[in-house]
Amino acid sequence: MQTKEVHYSDYLQLDKILDAQTPESDLNGHPAHDEMLFIIIHQAYELWFKQILFEIDSVAAIMSQKVINDNSPDLQTIVHRLERIGVILKVAVHQIDIMETMTPMDFLDFRDFLRPASGFQSWQFKIAEAKLGLQFPERHGQEYYISQLRREHVDMIKSVEQQPSLLDLVDQWLGRMPFFEQPEHWKNYRALYPETPGKHPFWSDYSVIYANSLVEGEKANLAHFERLFFEKERSPERRLSAAACRSALFIMLYRGYPMLQLPFRLLNSLLEIDEQLSTWRYRHMSMVTRMIGLRTGTGGSSGRDYLKGALDKHYIFREIAALSSYLIERRRLPVLNREVEAQLGF
Amino acid sequence: MQTKEVHYSDYLQLDKILDAQTPESDLNGHPAHDEMLFIIIHQAYELWFKQILFEIDSVAAIMSQKVINDNSPDLQTIVHRLERIGVILKVAVHQIDIMETMTPMDFLDFRDFLRPASGFQSWQFKIAEAKLGLQFPERHGQEYYISQLRREHVDMIKSVEQQPSLLDLVDQWLGRMPFFEQPEHWKNYRALYPETPGKHPFWSDYSVIYANSLVEGEKANLAHFERLFFEKERSPERRLSAAACRSALFIMLYRGYPMLQLPFRLLNSLLEIDEQLSTWRYRHMSMVTRMIGLRTGTGGSSGRDYLKGALDKHYIFREIAALSSYLIERRRLPVLNREVEAQLGF
Amino acid sequence: MQTKEVHYSDYLQLDKILDAQTPESDLNGHPAHDEMLFIIIHQAYELWFKQILFEIDSVAAIMSQKVINDNSPDLQTIVHRLERIGVILKVAVHQIDIMETMTPMDFLDFRDFLRPASGFQSWQFKIAEAKLGLQFPERHGQEYYISQLRREHVDMIKSVEQQPSLLDLVDQWLGRMPFFEQPEHWKNYRALYPETPGKHPFWSDYSVIYANSLVEGEKANLAHFERLFFEKERSPERRLSAAACRSALFIMLYRGYPMLQLPFRLLNSLLEIDEQLSTWRYRHMSMVTRMIGLRTGTGGSSGRDYLKGALDKHYIFREIAALSSYLIERRRLPVLNREVEAQLGF
Amino acid sequence: MQTKEVHYSDYLQLDKILDAQTPESDLNGHPAHDEMLFIIIHQAYELWFKQILFEIDSVAAIMSQKVINDNSPDLQTIVHRLERIGVILKVAVHQIDIMETMTPMDFLDFRDFLRPASGFQSWQFKIAEAKLGLQFPERHGQEYYISQLRREHVDMIKSVEQQPSLLDLVDQWLGRMPFFEQPEHWKNYRALYPETPGKHPFWSDYSVIYANSLVEGEKANLAHFERLFFEKERSPERRLSAAACRSALFIMLYRGYPMLQLPFRLLNSLLEIDEQLSTWRYRHMSMVTRMIGLRTGTGGSSGRDYLKGALDKHYIFREIAALSSYLIERRRLPVLNREVEAQLGF
Repeated sequence: MQTKEVHYSDYLQLDKILDAQTPESDLNGHPAHDEMLFIIIHQAYELWFKQILFEIDSVAAIMSQKVINDNSPDLQTIVHRLERIGVILKVAVHQIDIMETMTPMDFLDFRDFLRPASGFQSWQFKIAEAKLGLQFPERHGQEYYISQLRREHVDMIKSVEQQPSLLDLVDQWLGRMPFFEQPEHWKNYRALYPETPGKHPFWSDYSVIYANSLVEGEKANLAHFERLFFEKERSPERRLSAAACRSALFIMLYRGYPMLQLPFRLLNSLLEIDEQLSTWRYRHMSMVTRMIGLRTGTGGSSGRDYLKGALDKHYIFREIAALSSYLIERRRLPVLNREVEAQLGF
Repeated sequence: MQTKEVHYSDYLQLDKILDAQTPESDLNGHPAHDEMLFIIIHQAYELWFKQILFEIDSVAAIMSQKVINDNSPDLQTIVHRLERIGVILKVAVHQIDIMETMTPMDFLDFRDFLRPASGFQSWQFKIAEAKLGLQFPERHGQEYYISQLRREHVDMIKSVEQQPSLLDLVDQWLGRMPFFEQPEHWKNYRALYPETPGKHPFWSDYSVIYANSLVEGEKANLAHFERLFFEKERSPERRLSAAACRSALFIMLYRGYPMLQLPFRLLNSLLEIDEQLSTWRYRHMSMVTRMIGLRTGTGGSSGRDYLKGALDKHYIFREIAALSSYLIERRRLPVLNREVEAQLGF
Repeated sequence: MQTKEVHYSDYLQLDKILDAQTPESDLNGHPAHDEMLFIIIHQAYELWFKQILFEIDSVAAIMSQKVINDNSPDLQTIVHRLERIGVILKVAVHQIDIMETMTPMDFLDFRDFLRPASGFQSWQFKIAEAKLGLQFPERHGQEYYISQLRREHVDMIKSVEQQPSLLDLVDQWLGRMPFFEQPEHWKNYRALYPETPGKHPFWSDYSVIYANSLVEGEKANLAHFERLFFEKERSPERRLSAAACRSALFIMLYRGYPMLQLPFRLLNSLLEIDEQLSTWRYRHMSMVTRMIGLRTGTGGSSGRDYLKGALDKHYIFREIAALSSYLIERRRLPVLNREVEAQLGF
Repeated sequence: MQTKEVHYSDYLQLDKILDAQTPESDLNGHPAHDEMLFIIIHQAYELWFKQILFEIDSVAAIMSQKVINDNSPDLQTIVHRLERIGVILKVAVHQIDIMETMTPMDFLDFRDFLRPASGFQSWQFKIAEAKLGLQFPERHGQEYYISQLRREHVDMIKSVEQQPSLLDLVDQWLGRMPFFEQPEHWKNYRALYPETPGKHPFWSDYSVIYANSLVEGEKANLAHFERLFFEKERSPERRLSAAACRSALFIMLYRGYPMLQLPFRLLNSLLEIDEQLSTWRYRHMSMVTRMIGLRTGTGGSSGRDYLKGALDKHYIFREIAALSSYLIERRRLPVLNREVEAQLGF
């Protein structure tokens, strides 16, 4: 145990934290009461972004191992931390309620003093997006966004984009899953339908059941299904391999088996992160609209339009979310043979 | 005081409320556990929609009076009830968290039994939108939405659309405001700039100040400003008259005066309703995407696309929201003369 | 698939749900606007209580099996549904925000018409408490609470109290856990300290480590520790056996192992339910205080005092919560031998 | 407008904010992942406490004026800022969800390194309580709490306690209200009951109506009523004078009148602050219980017991909350005469 005594104020370095608010409106001789709120809420956001980055890094470190040992706490730790990111983002969304206690007129009182600073300059947020898996070509308004950032921050983000992102690590982890690779476990699997050449008997059956489940107006999905799960070479626009998609779908379908529990929660936590990020962007956009209407943002952006553009494009785990289109009802699922079941249980 | 004794169960008619859940999956011989949740959450939503309609009706009744007496509790009552609708909608948004405890596989277990029922058939919600001010031509996917509803419900909605909506009543109330109509109060107003013909001296000044406030890239807003606040005849697409817009802007600018307090909160509560409705639609859309992916909704809609279409179009009070583009900084506001100030105080 | 077409309104039985609101103030000729809200919010609560009962029953049915097969989806299903109850309770807590839009004066307008009805007459809530594990002698204000309920509801609750509660089922499930019963798995366990007679070598070690971890002022905890985990006969006031407590503590300590993941989440979901129930009671009490002050409740209770009394007494899973006092740091944990580890992994 | 360009990172002083996290577990050579979360959440709390202090100070400055001009934006500003504090506290409560993603075992990993630091050493929170109106003799565990703080912080708190608190300022503001002081406005008031000597005719009537409203078991309230509203000299334990209580009750009763709108919301915002503070303390206590059970807190306190003790005692505006016991139904209210009504309207 340590010998030195720890004091709350020193431990939290409150001298720094509480001495970091200098309203521009004061410096400019037109003190505007609400600028303090504006500063503090953004600082609170940046603290949470730091925490989110810390969690992403720790998760990526574990997932970068060659093998994630199913008998270690690794998977549980990963899931726990990804779920925590979801909880933090929920509070971040809620925090917008505080910002909304500032009315447009109150914002106007100091808005001009901030130019050209802008929330787009939050490099921590951009790095978090990049570490999760957002890539430069997918970003909305690429040039604008680059122009806003300092050289050093652009470099940091670009360097992050060169590393494997969480999405890449998830793709690799899913692609490595050995369910279908071990023919000995499947030899007693009872195929329901004639085998399709080139497909594992399980997926051969699944394809037929899925095709039968499509109602009028959904028939076109079949082609997507074939491409998504069985294309030989990965299409350039895809972030998940066909093998990874098959693993992910299998996890969703048979999540009741103990061994698939944590993998299922891992996938779910990624969707939760995307959903909370997206809710955050949406509420942020609504708030900005309410605040500045059609006016130009302090950083010179067209405000609402930029945010709106990012809404649809910035879903990072959309290929995982899309898989729910290809599920079938539990009661039509192929029954697994005992050897496979044994692999999925304790 | 009443003589009959009241009992909780009778008072709440729990025999009806708690006996209104009959899962289709049971009737079809494939009981699916999560269908109970699906029924109950929709019933909870419908209860809240009933309450929201009840509040809208009561507010509309007060606002339909020829004059809203500033010395009566009328305005306070209106604001209180509109703010309550906002609080209800926040809980409605939160309630989606409960729905999200149902996974896509759990939904699939009973989804097919529900066809062609669909959430689009919630006539209470459609009526609420209509009472607030959404009109048929503004609705996304008009034919589809009509095709989903029963004749009787379509008739109800159409009949509501014929009545003055809350938005219409707000337009009339704003249009009636007497701030600028009484020349005697303004005779000591000190104009800052040469008068613009056809404009009240206050607005003549305001136009110049506003024009000066525009930064590079915003100059085009000036034409919008002129049209919005000073057009002689109402453009057919507008829901608020120029006079109503002037009143609303004046309220936002001078909300510090006691008499403008409640009017300001009234406008704000409308924006809050729109924002919560919009958040609800957005999270609903995200949830549906997560649940059924690209598949067809139980009512045959293209699911996500429909909901996405409605997102942008269904802002009911958007003309009020847009006014924040035309605010100017408090320290540049024209100073009101004493006679006008007296009108705005006690 | 079903042949009959399903319609939203019929499916949800909206004719019943939306026709179940009859304000007493209307019947008494003094219509009070806010009574509608009062009715609807209580009905929404009762819907959610029905759902909670439905989930508890389904969980209890699974847990009542002689053996919960670790290779079946049973445990995952139990955890999923208990966590859902937690999510529902969070919304129930949030719903109090809606109630708080009713001011004391608005409530007074119809309060007297409701006597002697009272929220204490919600038999669904009382049954939920009983099914979770609350027993009559632990209830605050027993006679009062009985006097409020109808004979039939008292009988229902009493009959529930005769059945094994969720707490009892958890006790049995924990008590059945075989970790320490199989001497062959532990034969290579390396004891750190001399064995204590009558204790398994693991617990013998643990007792010493725990004793060493106590700081000044905590020494008295040691006697509690011994009694809680090692008493031979169950003290009459205890709801968990010593063996169950040992299993629960082991689960908390070694939750990183795959096999203990779901058991850990199960325990956690029970604490979450207790915490949300308790938050609900607390916010409910605060709201009642704000609403009626020191006055007598409509059912004749002393309002706030009753609710306050229930706060502390009604923690159902408190014996599980209390176990966190007896944890030790991860880095001081006894290292498990390979044979035991193998039992806890896939 | 400023000439210097502002950049987001400089403006928010992110170099300080993001460089203020140094986990003790790292320094001690046993890095514990969750300590980062522990630091950051407390820093986020401290940022919000700073904001709350900033708002309280600004409100107190306005309320310290000899007269609050009803025709100025003063009252609106006060209410707006107090309501903002309520919104901030709601997010602070929600933030506990994040803390709860840390399990007891994760906390144990670094808990011992923090001794004797403790959340009780948050002097900002203690100062906020003092500025709102909590006084030393009302604090739970006075000596303990003093012993935890640094000399300089104790001095700061003591010095704040010497200043008029928000509660004192509210008492003075309520006591100054002129409703009943101007006999000329009341001369046409029609008394319903024979006058009580020493009471204003309005209060004379009100006393009779209130007495009649009491049901069996509430009769004892009458003595409280007389003392609370009509005692000649202020009892030493009271924070509000009888005159202030009469004003506050009058505001609650007749809040429909425009002039009482903002005063009513002001009183309500104080109760909301108390309720959120109390919810925060309650959830904090629940979390600590879940985290450390019966063990001693890092600062040496008995953890849960301290927090529990503070729960009941630290209601700052309880004398205002208690007034709702003395309301009567709207339809039994004395009708005000025209001259008084004119004072309460525009």
